[in-house]
Amino acid sequence: MSLLVFGTMAIDSVKTPFGAREEAVGGSATYFSVAASYFTEVRLVAVVGDDFPEETLAFLGERGVDASGLDVRPGKKTFRWKGEYGFDLNTAHTLDTRLNVVADAPPGVPEGFRDSDFVFLANIDPTLQAEALAQTDAPRLSACDTMDFWINGKREELLKTLSMVDMVVVNDAEARALSGEPNIARAARRIREIGPGTLVVKRGEYGALLFHGEEDAFSAPGLPMEDARDPTGAGDSFAGGFMGHLAATGDLSGEGMRRAVVFGSVMASFNVEAFSYDRMKTLTRADIEARYRTFAELARFERL
Amino acid sequence: MSLLVFGTMAIDSVKTPFGAREEAVGGSATYFSVAASYFTEVRLVAVVGDDFPEETLAFLGERGVDASGLDVRPGKKTFRWKGEYGFDLNTAHTLDTRLNVVADAPPGVPEGFRDSDFVFLANIDPTLQAEALAQTDAPRLSACDTMDFWINGKREELLKTLSMVDMVVVNDAEARALSGEPNIARAARRIREIGPGTLVVKRGEYGALLFHGEEDAFSAPGLPMEDARDPTGAGDSFAGGFMGHLAATGDLSGEGMRRAVVFGSVMASFNVEAFSYDRMKTLTRADIEARYRTFAELARFERL
Repeated sequence: MSLLVFGTMAIDSVKTPFGAREEAVGGSATYFSVAASYFTEVRLVAVVGDDFPEETLAFLGERGVDASGLDVRPGKKTFRWKGEYGFDLNTAHTLDTRLNVVADAPPGVPEGFRDSDFVFLANIDPTLQAEALAQTDAPRLSACDTMDFWINGKREELLKTLSMVDMVVVNDAEARALSGEPNIARAARRIREIGPGTLVVKRGEYGALLFHGEEDAFSAPGLPMEDARDPTGAGDSFAGGFMGHLAATGDLSGEGMRRAVVFGSVMASFNVEAFSYDRMKTLTRADIEARYRTFAELARFERL
Repeated sequence: MSLLVFGTMAIDSVKTPFGAREEAVGGSATYFSVAASYFTEVRLVAVVGDDFPEETLAFLGERGVDASGLDVRPGKKTFRWKGEYGFDLNTAHTLDTRLNVVADAPPGVPEGFRDSDFVFLANIDPTLQAEALAQTDAPRLSACDTMDFWINGKREELLKTLSMVDMVVVNDAEARALSGEPNIARAARRIREIGPGTLVVKRGEYGALLFHGEEDAFSAPGLPMEDARDPTGAGDSFAGGFMGHLAATGDLSGEGMRRAVVFGSVMASFNVEAFSYDRMKTLTRADIEARYRTFAELARFERL
């Protein structure tokens, strides 16, 4: 089934204790699209300047991403982010942000994308998320991400967006900030009371938690990796694998959601192995399934 | 099979955002013994003053703990610890420590305990851990815990102890401090290079990791709990459930170790529900097995 992503494409300069990369392609919609492209056809809605690398656009085309919702604005510059990470790779420290073209009018959802079955609203101004969702016709599943900047700065608008979507995908610090509740189980309950019946809490190296309908919680493990290099885009790669699997199978049962969380974890684990989306350039379905089995082995124990 | 624990018994004053308790029984050997008593007979080696509550000694007797290695010193006071936790319950802030009787000569391992099959050296001066281990006859499995205080203050002595044991059980901050390596997978490899073939990394609310022999890593989930009240003793309760299961079954295979990690997690999850060892006073085997099944449900996902 069709999967639409609404988000940002960026040019990032990133430094981690394991290396650095200047002016490399990033952005939530980029990571999401590339990760999801291994599962289903992706419809991309974003805006960039005319400085955005042709190479990435060509790659997205090869991956079957429908970029007819990509608004390339002449004479404008692409959004830029500069940041660095400490040794634990858990928290990004922003050094510089240049909104550039993202400060102008948002991209519109093309007419041909209105019927999308699955919609992911990546981290962006919650008002824009709500407007983008309103440009689609009742998708089967809508989900959104967000960040502290909006939780603190546009709380009312964010709560409105959250009341419109079926699912929220946030990290644990965001879940705590959003709910005002340090205990993650209580935080989950409060967020779901706002509206979304499904919540995924991303926990970086510690894996992810899924709260879905009336079912018991699910905890996906984080893969202990000796070679993690750059966590930029891990959360969006997670969302791409997660939503990509859901859209590919149409299975929204508890079992299907659990498998989707593992596929999301798989894509995030690949993404952190290299800067930008480099590691996701050359994956095969066999690589992805092999890593899924690694996760299964990691979490396996005998029942009583 | 027989299980010996060498550690401390204490009187703790603890404050958390969910309550406070003055002068309640705690200590690594206490939590370990109570947790392990649900699996096997425990042999306890520790030293207390004559102010140690009779009630706890009676309870340990009821639980089948052999306290003939408990050295009650007349005219001396029991070790005291005072601490508090913030909202995340992850890190203890020590407000006061009174070594009292623990500053004197350590307790000796009774002759009748020398043949213990399983030995757990709880967090204490690594020199005392090594001396206690030397008073046993080649146990089938020996394990130790430690803390930052010894990692930084008695590093050489600790490395010697680590080279003598089969297994180390530490939390993730300790694993990082011990190895000087922020990446947990590399930290695990370095710690195991010191000697112990098996390493368990406790991660609080995030669960636990097991590295065992040449096998793949195992990740046990942490149970999302709305009612966590006091994390004091969670790590020792984990170790008690873990070693208790191993001693009860004698199964040191990869499968057996994985199940033991889950039983450890089960006991830790009960312990944090109340102050002191209150929640572990009234458990039944059925309660423990039901929670094991809850963990199994939490971690379950379909294979490909």
